[in-house]
Amino acid sequence: MAFDLKRRLAAEALGTAILVATVVGSGIMADRLSDDVAVSLLGNTIPTGAILVVLISILGPISGAHFNPGVTLVFAARREIETSAAALYVIAQAAGGIAGTLVAHAMFDLHLFQVSETVRTGTGQWIAEAVATFGLVFTILAGLRFREDAIPWLVGLYITAAYWFTASTSFANPAVAIARAFSNTFSGIRPMDVPAFIVAEVLGALVATAVAAWMLAKRPSTSAITLKGAE
Amino acid sequence: MAFDLKRRLAAEALGTAILVATVVGSGIMADRLSDDVAVSLLGNTIPTGAILVVLISILGPISGAHFNPGVTLVFAARREIETSAAALYVIAQAAGGIAGTLVAHAMFDLHLFQVSETVRTGTGQWIAEAVATFGLVFTILAGLRFREDAIPWLVGLYITAAYWFTASTSFANPAVAIARAFSNTFSGIRPMDVPAFIVAEVLGALVATAVAAWMLAKRPSTSAITLKGAE
Amino acid sequence: MAFDLKRRLAAEALGTAILVATVVGSGIMADRLSDDVAVSLLGNTIPTGAILVVLISILGPISGAHFNPGVTLVFAARREIETSAAALYVIAQAAGGIAGTLVAHAMFDLHLFQVSETVRTGTGQWIAEAVATFGLVFTILAGLRFREDAIPWLVGLYITAAYWFTASTSFANPAVAIARAFSNTFSGIRPMDVPAFIVAEVLGALVATAVAAWMLAKRPSTSAITLKGAE
Amino acid sequence: MAFDLKRRLAAEALGTAILVATVVGSGIMADRLSDDVAVSLLGNTIPTGAILVVLISILGPISGAHFNPGVTLVFAARREIETSAAALYVIAQAAGGIAGTLVAHAMFDLHLFQVSETVRTGTGQWIAEAVATFGLVFTILAGLRFREDAIPWLVGLYITAAYWFTASTSFANPAVAIARAFSNTFSGIRPMDVPAFIVAEVLGALVATAVAAWMLAKRPSTSAITLKGAE
Repeated sequence: MAFDLKRRLAAEALGTAILVATVVGSGIMADRLSDDVAVSLLGNTIPTGAILVVLISILGPISGAHFNPGVTLVFAARREIETSAAALYVIAQAAGGIAGTLVAHAMFDLHLFQVSETVRTGTGQWIAEAVATFGLVFTILAGLRFREDAIPWLVGLYITAAYWFTASTSFANPAVAIARAFSNTFSGIRPMDVPAFIVAEVLGALVATAVAAWMLAKRPSTSAITLKGAE
Repeated sequence: MAFDLKRRLAAEALGTAILVATVVGSGIMADRLSDDVAVSLLGNTIPTGAILVVLISILGPISGAHFNPGVTLVFAARREIETSAAALYVIAQAAGGIAGTLVAHAMFDLHLFQVSETVRTGTGQWIAEAVATFGLVFTILAGLRFREDAIPWLVGLYITAAYWFTASTSFANPAVAIARAFSNTFSGIRPMDVPAFIVAEVLGALVATAVAAWMLAKRPSTSAITLKGAE
Repeated sequence: MAFDLKRRLAAEALGTAILVATVVGSGIMADRLSDDVAVSLLGNTIPTGAILVVLISILGPISGAHFNPGVTLVFAARREIETSAAALYVIAQAAGGIAGTLVAHAMFDLHLFQVSETVRTGTGQWIAEAVATFGLVFTILAGLRFREDAIPWLVGLYITAAYWFTASTSFANPAVAIARAFSNTFSGIRPMDVPAFIVAEVLGALVATAVAAWMLAKRPSTSAITLKGAE
Repeated sequence: MAFDLKRRLAAEALGTAILVATVVGSGIMADRLSDDVAVSLLGNTIPTGAILVVLISILGPISGAHFNPGVTLVFAARREIETSAAALYVIAQAAGGIAGTLVAHAMFDLHLFQVSETVRTGTGQWIAEAVATFGLVFTILAGLRFREDAIPWLVGLYITAAYWFTASTSFANPAVAIARAFSNTFSGIRPMDVPAFIVAEVLGALVATAVAAWMLAKRPSTSAITLKGAE
């Protein structure tokens, strides 16, 4: 790794800030402009997927572009990042995420400091968060194995899909969940609902790590993607 | 093939499950959020196209990423997968697909077991399914010939288009058709309408196999894509 | 060129048929499902852009993937296709396009043979068609020079944009214009309005050929795309 | 650089013209077709992102594909373009942008010369423009460092996101801001509001240049994108 820890932490903070500013900002914009909630969700989804491709492409070479404590935890469990660096990553992500919320509020002339009142709780929501994070982590781990240079696209497209197929619109990220608790807008979440989201996300991440460890544990296959069920 | 049959079947089941969870889940989400059916269909289309790119990229190297008995049948007819393995693939796909429906229902707090009442029948629908599967299989076979590494994108984009240009919204997949019969939501299909869909899909797949065998049967061209009508 | 003329003509006919089936079919679907014309146009645009990426990727290596008499004319003018082959290309494109309209009608349970009543005429429309075709042909010629393997994407994305920024929704293709005259649905055009569209398209194509001949006429630059204004 | 200054300036003018014609033209189309402003913004966003990928791909090898005085200023500050050429670039961009507005008006049968009455002012808007341009310039500079061949996509996707997450819909370009002042349509801006936009854009560009100089200032890392937090 050519970049020192200071720059890596700055990249994690900046990336998470822009990611959250996109989620919160596009949510505000979309909600203001439409009465059709599905149209608003499209206006929230497309920017989020797009910015993920950009951020992972340009910051991945510096910090790995986690932007997500769940992802950092997975790499720590796989001993691919030191525990001390991982802890600092998580702090940078949380701080960057909250900064992203503040920037979004400033741009839209809203009070900088807010607390969300949006209820997001219940079994369905928790299953959704576990499923969403399972899919995200499995995508990253299998992507690293087979198509490393496509990972920015794979993550951006995965989240684009997960916004819609999970009942929770796929937070799938503890730092983003915390940051969204500070915004009483379209993409907010009540602070008291955050802990259960984080528990579900961590569980989903750990299950994905285990499944990937089993399913990918093999001699390297040919790197070519194929639809053929070759013998 | 570096991966053993157990892992290949697991990849087929997991991939089909996530694919169906996306189709059914995003259908529920989109239908709940909008009164405009075209907006709902966009909210169903975009996630499906996106997840296909992801799933084929990350599971293709393990199992070939068929996720579709029609596709498995084509490769069996071309003797590119053994008959016994093909039969197990189809079972894994069907089981995975139904599991995907159940996961979608669990996330959206719906009854897990449902039977669809959505009528999808008639000549137009059957022509549409045959056309949709023809296009899908031709895309895969020509893609394997000319642009193997682009296949995740080609399939994702093809289905994105086929959702809209076919009157049936392009099931194009017997396992997905069966799984969707178990969901009385936006993307469901009445069980009694499934067999005709499967017949049309298999016919479309076989015609595509024959057309591709003729049209692609030539000395290898230059691999470069060109718009020039070179001599 | 490894493929014989028979297969090249079949590829042109098949590709133009699928392209037109997508344009006409998605137009019918979108128009039926929404009262918001912009939503319908999105449901028409996204499938068209997507299918172009697919068709050019999989049929480009066979025939060059013109699907467009204007494009074939340009390559004939540049002596990159023989005149006799070019004439047969145009016939295959026109026949394929009409077949595509019929397939779309069959899928949507409409009368197979129709004549459009949609008025598309006037100076603005003609300027739009000239601009649209100028941009398409320039994109193809500059793409061939600098990014040949990206051409499927460049054309798909160009048409995605041109649907919206031109007042005519960018037919930009005489074969497609003729085929759309046979459909009295969302994407139709009155037969009497077609000739002026074709004239405008041919003019735009010829201007683009001339501009590209001048602008690209230089020693080869480095192939890398750069945003830097290097000396 | 293989291309002479004349061709480089022509490429800057042509590219900025098509970019502005897309922004203004798709804004007119979208606004006419829908009463839902979020739908109109989608119809404005998707074409703009798409055309940016195309224009940077096909004109980047000629001129660098700045299309933006802010970007030209950054490269001049980094001494990657001569001051005299930079000044001519800015003139070509401004002239091309205004021509793009006129072309859009001609296609939509509007008065060619207009003055916008759309108010776009206030602290939130200015912060938004600074943030938007910061992100654009940082994306370009980090993209040039790590993924040069992906820059057309990175810029297209960044602007797709920025249309929604910034309160100003992300002009992020002084030449485009000036050109939009001449259109009293969806995407217009009152002339008296332009200077503050330009100041904010230049500030954002300069901050991004400084941040990138620090964050990217390191021995070359491995070129592979990685999500792992490798040591």
